[in-house]
Amino acid sequence: GMPTPTLFTEMDTLQHDGEELEWRESARWVKFEEKVEEGGERWSKPHVSTLSLHSLFELRTCLQTGVVLLDLEGYSLPQIVDDIIERQIEEGMIGPELRDKISFVLLRKHRHQTKKPIHRSLADMGKGSSGYFSLCFCCVAGHAQSRSMNDIADTPSTDQLKNKFMKKIPRDAEASNVLVGEVDFLDKPFVAFVRLAQATTLGGLTEVPVPTRFLFVLLGPHGKAKSYNEIGRAIATLMVDDLFSDVAYKARDREDLIAGIDEFLDEVIVLPPGEWDPKIRIEPPKKVLSADKRKSVFSLNELGQMNGSVGGGGGVSEDEEMPVPHELGEELAYTGRFCGGLFLDIKRKLPWYPSDFYEGFHIQSISAVLFIYLGCITNAITFGGLLGDATDNYQGVMESFLGTALAGTVFCLFGGQPLIILSSTGPILIFEKLLYEFSKSNSIDYMELRLWIGMHACAQCLFLVATDASYIIKYMTRFTEEGFSSLISFIFISDAIKKMVGSFKYYPINTEFNPDYVTAYKCECVAPDPSEVWTMNITALDWTQLSKKECVKYGGSLVGKSCKYVPDLALMSFILFFGTYSMTVSLKKFKFSRYFPTKLRKLISDFSIFMSIMTFVGLDMLIGLKTPKLIVPTEFKPTRPDRGWIVMPFGKNPWWVYVASFVPALLVTILIFMDQQISAVIVNRKENKLKKGCGYHLDLFWVGLLMAACSFIGLPWYVAATVISIAHIDSLKMESESSAPGEQPQFLGVREQRMTGILVFVLTGVSIFLAPVLQFIPMPVLYGVFLYMGVASLGGIQFWDRTKLFLMPAKHQPDFTYLRHVPLRRVHLFTLLQIVCLAVLWILKSTFLAIIFPVMILGLMLVRKMLDMVFSQHDLAWLDDLLPEKEKKKKDDEKKNSSSKKDKKKGRVGDDSEDDTYLHTENPISIQYPIYNGKIST
Amino acid sequence: GMPTPTLFTEMDTLQHDGEELEWRESARWVKFEEKVEEGGERWSKPHVSTLSLHSLFELRTCLQTGVVLLDLEGYSLPQIVDDIIERQIEEGMIGPELRDKISFVLLRKHRHQTKKPIHRSLADMGKGSSGYFSLCFCCVAGHAQSRSMNDIADTPSTDQLKNKFMKKIPRDAEASNVLVGEVDFLDKPFVAFVRLAQATTLGGLTEVPVPTRFLFVLLGPHGKAKSYNEIGRAIATLMVDDLFSDVAYKARDREDLIAGIDEFLDEVIVLPPGEWDPKIRIEPPKKVLSADKRKSVFSLNELGQMNGSVGGGGGVSEDEEMPVPHELGEELAYTGRFCGGLFLDIKRKLPWYPSDFYEGFHIQSISAVLFIYLGCITNAITFGGLLGDATDNYQGVMESFLGTALAGTVFCLFGGQPLIILSSTGPILIFEKLLYEFSKSNSIDYMELRLWIGMHACAQCLFLVATDASYIIKYMTRFTEEGFSSLISFIFISDAIKKMVGSFKYYPINTEFNPDYVTAYKCECVAPDPSEVWTMNITALDWTQLSKKECVKYGGSLVGKSCKYVPDLALMSFILFFGTYSMTVSLKKFKFSRYFPTKLRKLISDFSIFMSIMTFVGLDMLIGLKTPKLIVPTEFKPTRPDRGWIVMPFGKNPWWVYVASFVPALLVTILIFMDQQISAVIVNRKENKLKKGCGYHLDLFWVGLLMAACSFIGLPWYVAATVISIAHIDSLKMESESSAPGEQPQFLGVREQRMTGILVFVLTGVSIFLAPVLQFIPMPVLYGVFLYMGVASLGGIQFWDRTKLFLMPAKHQPDFTYLRHVPLRRVHLFTLLQIVCLAVLWILKSTFLAIIFPVMILGLMLVRKMLDMVFSQHDLAWLDDLLPEKEKKKKDDEKKNSSSKKDKKKGRVGDDSEDDTYLHTENPISIQYPIYNGKIST
Repeated sequence: GMPTPTLFTEMDTLQHDGEELEWRESARWVKFEEKVEEGGERWSKPHVSTLSLHSLFELRTCLQTGVVLLDLEGYSLPQIVDDIIERQIEEGMIGPELRDKISFVLLRKHRHQTKKPIHRSLADMGKGSSGYFSLCFCCVAGHAQSRSMNDIADTPSTDQLKNKFMKKIPRDAEASNVLVGEVDFLDKPFVAFVRLAQATTLGGLTEVPVPTRFLFVLLGPHGKAKSYNEIGRAIATLMVDDLFSDVAYKARDREDLIAGIDEFLDEVIVLPPGEWDPKIRIEPPKKVLSADKRKSVFSLNELGQMNGSVGGGGGVSEDEEMPVPHELGEELAYTGRFCGGLFLDIKRKLPWYPSDFYEGFHIQSISAVLFIYLGCITNAITFGGLLGDATDNYQGVMESFLGTALAGTVFCLFGGQPLIILSSTGPILIFEKLLYEFSKSNSIDYMELRLWIGMHACAQCLFLVATDASYIIKYMTRFTEEGFSSLISFIFISDAIKKMVGSFKYYPINTEFNPDYVTAYKCECVAPDPSEVWTMNITALDWTQLSKKECVKYGGSLVGKSCKYVPDLALMSFILFFGTYSMTVSLKKFKFSRYFPTKLRKLISDFSIFMSIMTFVGLDMLIGLKTPKLIVPTEFKPTRPDRGWIVMPFGKNPWWVYVASFVPALLVTILIFMDQQISAVIVNRKENKLKKGCGYHLDLFWVGLLMAACSFIGLPWYVAATVISIAHIDSLKMESESSAPGEQPQFLGVREQRMTGILVFVLTGVSIFLAPVLQFIPMPVLYGVFLYMGVASLGGIQFWDRTKLFLMPAKHQPDFTYLRHVPLRRVHLFTLLQIVCLAVLWILKSTFLAIIFPVMILGLMLVRKMLDMVFSQHDLAWLDDLLPEKEKKKKDDEKKNSSSKKDKKKGRVGDDSEDDTYLHTENPISIQYPIYNGKIST
Repeated sequence: GMPTPTLFTEMDTLQHDGEELEWRESARWVKFEEKVEEGGERWSKPHVSTLSLHSLFELRTCLQTGVVLLDLEGYSLPQIVDDIIERQIEEGMIGPELRDKISFVLLRKHRHQTKKPIHRSLADMGKGSSGYFSLCFCCVAGHAQSRSMNDIADTPSTDQLKNKFMKKIPRDAEASNVLVGEVDFLDKPFVAFVRLAQATTLGGLTEVPVPTRFLFVLLGPHGKAKSYNEIGRAIATLMVDDLFSDVAYKARDREDLIAGIDEFLDEVIVLPPGEWDPKIRIEPPKKVLSADKRKSVFSLNELGQMNGSVGGGGGVSEDEEMPVPHELGEELAYTGRFCGGLFLDIKRKLPWYPSDFYEGFHIQSISAVLFIYLGCITNAITFGGLLGDATDNYQGVMESFLGTALAGTVFCLFGGQPLIILSSTGPILIFEKLLYEFSKSNSIDYMELRLWIGMHACAQCLFLVATDASYIIKYMTRFTEEGFSSLISFIFISDAIKKMVGSFKYYPINTEFNPDYVTAYKCECVAPDPSEVWTMNITALDWTQLSKKECVKYGGSLVGKSCKYVPDLALMSFILFFGTYSMTVSLKKFKFSRYFPTKLRKLISDFSIFMSIMTFVGLDMLIGLKTPKLIVPTEFKPTRPDRGWIVMPFGKNPWWVYVASFVPALLVTILIFMDQQISAVIVNRKENKLKKGCGYHLDLFWVGLLMAACSFIGLPWYVAATVISIAHIDSLKMESESSAPGEQPQFLGVREQRMTGILVFVLTGVSIFLAPVLQFIPMPVLYGVFLYMGVASLGGIQFWDRTKLFLMPAKHQPDFTYLRHVPLRRVHLFTLLQIVCLAVLWILKSTFLAIIFPVMILGLMLVRKMLDMVFSQHDLAWLDDLLPEKEKKKKDDEKKNSSSKKDKKKGRVGDDSEDDTYLHTENPISIQYPIYNGKIST
């Protein structure tokens, strides 16, 4: 049927305020309980309602003996109260003489817990010490006649309407009101459960202007207040239970409600009193079973698995618990048609294209753009500088900026996965270096050769696209992915540290310096021996006025103790580097602190990198030392003056070079293909919950085209950069706004759009004009950001978690699911093998073999294949993923076995199969719960 | 009666291992549940056993229908099994033909979960992929005849005896064994509950060599494994429940056991299924109710207060929840006799005297000594330096070291509270400064005047001791204490930072330095104009060879751009300072990380300061910069050459000075008295759980005597130092070794002894000879330690917690008890008033009024008195403590009210008084729980 509305439950208890009787709100439930701390005049934290078994049984008795009015036509509280009392009198439960008294009590004013503004406290100061002992406890009846019978307004008050708590309640919610209290004129409890035919706003009954659907009233004789409270809490807890509220909405009679309670009792979780203190408020769990799931497993299998199943020693039962296999989906299916994958990619991405733009307009995008932009220009500068060194400035910082901007923008505009960030990568750098050396020593024109290699590689990429070759990515499991991405993270970390250490070499510290002997330190430029430099007219120079560079330039020599030292800069660089890193880490963690409202904390966390950079740029400016700064080219022209923007394909090299360049192009293609697709797999991981699909073929198509384009303009080649892409995704993660108080925000997915990427690269292009601003950023700050990126991208990697297990004693290890299913020594062995693989890769990377680095990833895939011989499929399913054929085989096996399974099971304990049920298999609900006969009426 | 032994419960389930049947351990309980993770082959973390209500009811049915054998004479498992089966046959529950089959099953081998060493994993490698699918599920009966009837050895195996888990089980423990399993030859469950007359070790039945007292067996027909498991977990959880195990030990018949279960059910805590996922393992709570407490409150009042009481609007009920009043005990009682307090102090401390020495021999003492020693010498050097400046070296570093050593050693040997560390303090320093200036300008001999002041002050202190004057400390509440100690902490923090900032002034950085213009930087000593210095024969000097100091000394002038700058030292100092501080903080926190075994972590945490100091001393040595180092005097002689060690009382000043010095002495006495006793109150706080009592009078006695002694030798005066004393206590805190797995270690108290203090001060004295080692410690490292001390001592202060509340939104605030009872705005107001008081004190402290600083603490006590007019006694009881008279008045009020209370309560809901009970007041236990008739036998 129709889904029933969410219920908001408020419990009010009867109180004396001075001489007046009133209903005071004592707790409320959206999903979890929030209690009014009487003394603290505040709401408690939302917590799980811990009930006593008693109160539940007593509630059951109440519903069995009290009045149950279902689908009552109610338009106002007085009328509803009249109806309830009338029915009670009809059924002979109370005498008619109590009518007025009960009605009077039930129509007293309701006082809700609302925030008192802080400035009132000064007004309160005077009355502090008095007032606590002066409450007058007069009995109700005496005043009954003297005041109005009805304190409750018909329309919601402004307090109700202004209540901000409304935000936390779903739009369609209805209220259930629980009223419990002690009175002195009753000698047995007065109980009523009412469901209104239409949800109606009953004046000031509820704290928020939500229409009331249910009403539970319990008035009883004096002396059992605590018991009544507990019963009230029990019904309130039941009302917000998804399954019971469904029952309550649909119940035809009293018996349906009782059955609902029994169902609830059947599912409750019991904590032994000796192991748990009932006073502890239990924090809401991260996740609870949904109502549907609870229905489907209904107290049988799932409850049986309390704390994970006990028993179940062998293999089969556990295999059934194996994790869902790694699904790469249709994106990597082999179509067998020409460009079949590419067309599917376009078909898949096209419908999302408009939303790829308008979904980018969000505050989070700004922080993401800033973060990634800084990463990109740092990368562009670093690689630009290195490329310039390697190629005698044929490709320098200028080319690097331009290329990054061009390739990135085009890719983000048209690529299959716009969350991927293109960048220069290490292997490409090494390739260019070797290529330049080769052409120089063989007198081949480098730029022309490079153009041909680019064109060949482009053609090869297009061939791979046309033949759906990306489907082989399917064979890449977590093992390969994580190996690759850890390696890249380690490279980031080691590069950042190397650069930092480098600055200690670049700015040597004079550790011998003694402040008292400052007079002994100087550095003078001494003119060279005139006999050697007679050809130059330099004798006119004032040698002492020359700077270090000039001195060296004119052939002078630097003499003095302070010549080779640079004070302060190395240490200042270290402070900037380490400060940026650790401030970013702390600010990221700030999200989990208790200070400031959640939104502000999230903002601080999102902008942590930006804020750290600003802070340390500020510190650097304040101190004013000449730390090495970011240098951005300011003029739009190639770095090397003797080359133009366009590279011509013919004329400089012999014809056979055009053909032979096919071979190095093949290497580049493999390199590009692996680098690109592994990064894409990592970005498209299931954990990221991407909804718009990906496009491996489309990605490769554009990377190929861009290679050719970049070759023509003489710009570096670009390919997906793992670490920055992961950072991009991380900065765009979305979490659900927690609705009910206490509910944990859930990771919803990533803000998938093209705007951030495009903006990043447009900004990178514009950076050439931003030089006046960017020149204030010290390089050590950027190295700090690099370090952070490397460390942060290790964070999400299971391999890294497993490595940390080596240092933890078994009993302190986190409760990772795989540790429940795979023996620790097997886990360690797996990790150890991964470490060995990485070590080998790291060593290879440090040699000239770095050029075939991406090819080595193929090696990792081979190693993974061999792991099938060392580890069981069960272990691998938990620690890694199964390889496609294995998976298929596995399913076949299962089919074959399923028929013979039942026989096999005989005599075994602990199977998790579906025919295991409770002892009372026939009808698990039909338990006879005890009835406290007469107990309630004493 | 006698307390019953602790029970260790092990649950074994029947499993097939290949073709063999065996009992495999699946969970165990000391207090909390530890489950065997089958796949992971490991123990889970200890967790609270979450049960289903079903399993408890089913267990109840099992005990009602099964065999219950109490006080069975059992010496071996086969005999016990025979007895059980015999009884079952007798009672007609099973046919005699099943005798052998059941006996065979029950006597199968027991396999316990033990650690497999990691090196075995290599041996396992080969069999990885096979073995999981090859289990053979043969039925039991076919094999029954082919093998021995009894797999169980009579004596414990070596595996059992070597099991390290034994450590976690109390010495007197007995075991209860739960055996559950599915067999195919039964058509209804076979249940037995056995209590042996004597606890007996039944061979390999239990994982540890603990004698078995209870045995629960549940064998049932095939298909309900999960249900059997849950029943097994239920009985196991019951057996480790303190109250039920008592019942089980004393039960006379089946009905007693059933009643025990009912009692248990009466107390259980129920979690609603929609708010909690049963799969979550609940971590053991920090504290659970003890069995006695549970008995006394028995499910009535306490359970009614689940999550704190609901309702209870007014004042009276809350006042009853007021915290225990601040008890200073008999130490501060006013005896009215001459030296009455002093004699009581001696009487109280004397019996502990021997243990004060031998209890000092513990590894923890070493770290405490190192930590406090470093704090003390840093203090001695700092104050020594400052005193030297202030008194023209009449008291310098040498005197400071000697005085610290002398006063500290004597105080720790004979003082009332040897945990207190004596030190120079700020107010004394300021007093000395003013005194020296006064005597200099009035031509009075400083040392002689000081001697007389010291003698007068000593006499005044002794007078205060003789008259028990310390009893006024009673009026010092948390407000005053915390105000004082926060202020001292802030002074520590600000001093450390000031010193650090100072080094930037002392070693100015040349921010204009440009590495390229290094040639432009020099500093030359230029000879003075010869006409001015004609009197001296200095023309012969080579001015360029002079050091900075020499140059200035001979009247030369320093010329050059680099003269006023010192490179690197300031930044290096900052790195050392901040590094030491943050490394100490991180290492302290390391105790809570998951890495390394608990003991190692604790060691790292205990030695965190020492390790940080060593690390940064190492770093400093490695870099080799001339950072400012600790300078320790090396020769044993007064700092000022013109004074001797002994100060003569007569001869230098006119006679009236001897009398008039009574007045400044009075100031010193107040100063000493307040400073000393507040620190003592803070050290003796209830939270520290000191067991050996304290001695305020005795402390003051020694401080007075030491004043006189120090005055005679011309050493500084010493008084208790709050921050270092707190650090001393913190470094000596003891925690219980957690016994049952999952139980939280409890803070037990402080290692109260005199050894650490004595060692610290002896070492301080010896430090004069340790100069060659100590000279490697850079001062910034010590400032870092200072900063840490200041910040750490803020940690335990409630005032500081409350200040932090200002920055937290109400819903994120921690669940402090006072927040449940006092409205937030009142809490904020209280904190705000405290902040204002501190600000005023801080400002006064920065003026010449600093000398009356301890007198201002009296002002704080006055302010506290006035707070009685602003805040209610209820609020103050939570936020502060009540003042003694108020407390007394309070009690009187209560007595008066108690008679009239019952009348007042009429018609009120939510009172917490004792006559509030459950609805079924008559006999809360006599609930008829349902019996699942026939369900168990299907």
